[in-house]
Amino acid sequence: MTDTQQLLDPILEFLPCETPEEWIAEAIKPENLPTLLIDHCNNELKAAQSAMSIAGRYRSGSASKQSEVKRNCEKKAASTALNLMYRYTGHFQLLNKMSRLAREELRHFEQVLTIIKKRDIPYGTLSASRYAGALRKHVRTWEPARMVDTLIIGAYIEARSCERFHKLAPYLDDELKKFYLSLLKSEGRHFKDYLTLAESLSEESIEERVAFFAKVEREAIESADETFRFHSGVPATA
Amino acid sequence: MTDTQQLLDPILEFLPCETPEEWIAEAIKPENLPTLLIDHCNNELKAAQSAMSIAGRYRSGSASKQSEVKRNCEKKAASTALNLMYRYTGHFQLLNKMSRLAREELRHFEQVLTIIKKRDIPYGTLSASRYAGALRKHVRTWEPARMVDTLIIGAYIEARSCERFHKLAPYLDDELKKFYLSLLKSEGRHFKDYLTLAESLSEESIEERVAFFAKVEREAIESADETFRFHSGVPATA
Repeated sequence: MTDTQQLLDPILEFLPCETPEEWIAEAIKPENLPTLLIDHCNNELKAAQSAMSIAGRYRSGSASKQSEVKRNCEKKAASTALNLMYRYTGHFQLLNKMSRLAREELRHFEQVLTIIKKRDIPYGTLSASRYAGALRKHVRTWEPARMVDTLIIGAYIEARSCERFHKLAPYLDDELKKFYLSLLKSEGRHFKDYLTLAESLSEESIEERVAFFAKVEREAIESADETFRFHSGVPATA
Repeated sequence: MTDTQQLLDPILEFLPCETPEEWIAEAIKPENLPTLLIDHCNNELKAAQSAMSIAGRYRSGSASKQSEVKRNCEKKAASTALNLMYRYTGHFQLLNKMSRLAREELRHFEQVLTIIKKRDIPYGTLSASRYAGALRKHVRTWEPARMVDTLIIGAYIEARSCERFHKLAPYLDDELKKFYLSLLKSEGRHFKDYLTLAESLSEESIEERVAFFAKVEREAIESADETFRFHSGVPATA
């Protein structure tokens, strides 16, 4: 089993469906390459912003969280001290992890940018895909549910990106093929990081929410989509 | 002349005033160290977010900017082609520069975070300093003036941070002294990057706006401030 396959298997296991053939057929049309690259470039920047906003939101909510855990401490048994310690360490872990994720996405943003520049592709505005919005509209509005949902969505976005990097690679020129497989390698474990963080923040099992967002993700990927993007659904023309 | 002094001289030349002694006296009180470090940590994350939001805003405004430049092209002489080329290259330069700046600030965020954790400092919430708000309320609301002002403010925040890193260093323990001087080295040229970008985006000289924000900055640094923070003014108790 190759390294790539080892990375890919858990991604395919996590995602509710594979990318439809019709999307691949559309994506590999030469006239769609600029859209693909610019949308991809935007997505890397957005992924970095999202990781940083998770860090920022978690950081600013930390005091109330800590005092809440302390209140629990007074009520509960000895195991809570361990819980508190875990929470406290987990806090740093989350901030640290999100910051590193953001740095990695920014490095990829710079890499796509360089490719776009090298190919003289006009870097104009591009409306966002419906994909992230379709997932985000289901985010619950109270904490920590909001953070848990945001992290689960992060996991789906990362996993879907990787699956598409891999699906597209065989059809791309050497430079892009190499680049997309390198992205699969560096981003291939991000979805698990997001899931681990979501689990550590949630009072209950996250299984139900993961299953819920799987349904929403599948719908976004398998239904007809008017606008071709990196994360778009089945081309409406297909 | 030491390396540090070579970095520091242009910073001191750019800033409208040095940090008042009263602030230093307050900052080196051992009981203020947690506040200093946590506020500093928050600031690194905010600086990264700000650099990325500049990239994001500039990116999304690029199409209208490009077509505007193209319209100019049709009207103006041969020099405009050069202008267009410059603009286009400048576009990538700005995105690239801001992304690298954001990555560097995130790395510093992780470093302060590690120090905070190592010292068992409770990482609670901390209200923002009045400093950035005092500058930002003067940002003009139309483009490219808005971006130009945002970049000039970025320059002041970076320069002031560096001046304070240097001012505080002699009073800190070895670990923090070394860290703050290393930050001066890596962030010491950021203010110039911000100014260069502001200049490249502005139709006219930015001198007047730089002088305007110098006055606002000086006022924020030299007037009495109720709340002690990394960028606060003269302690109200002094």
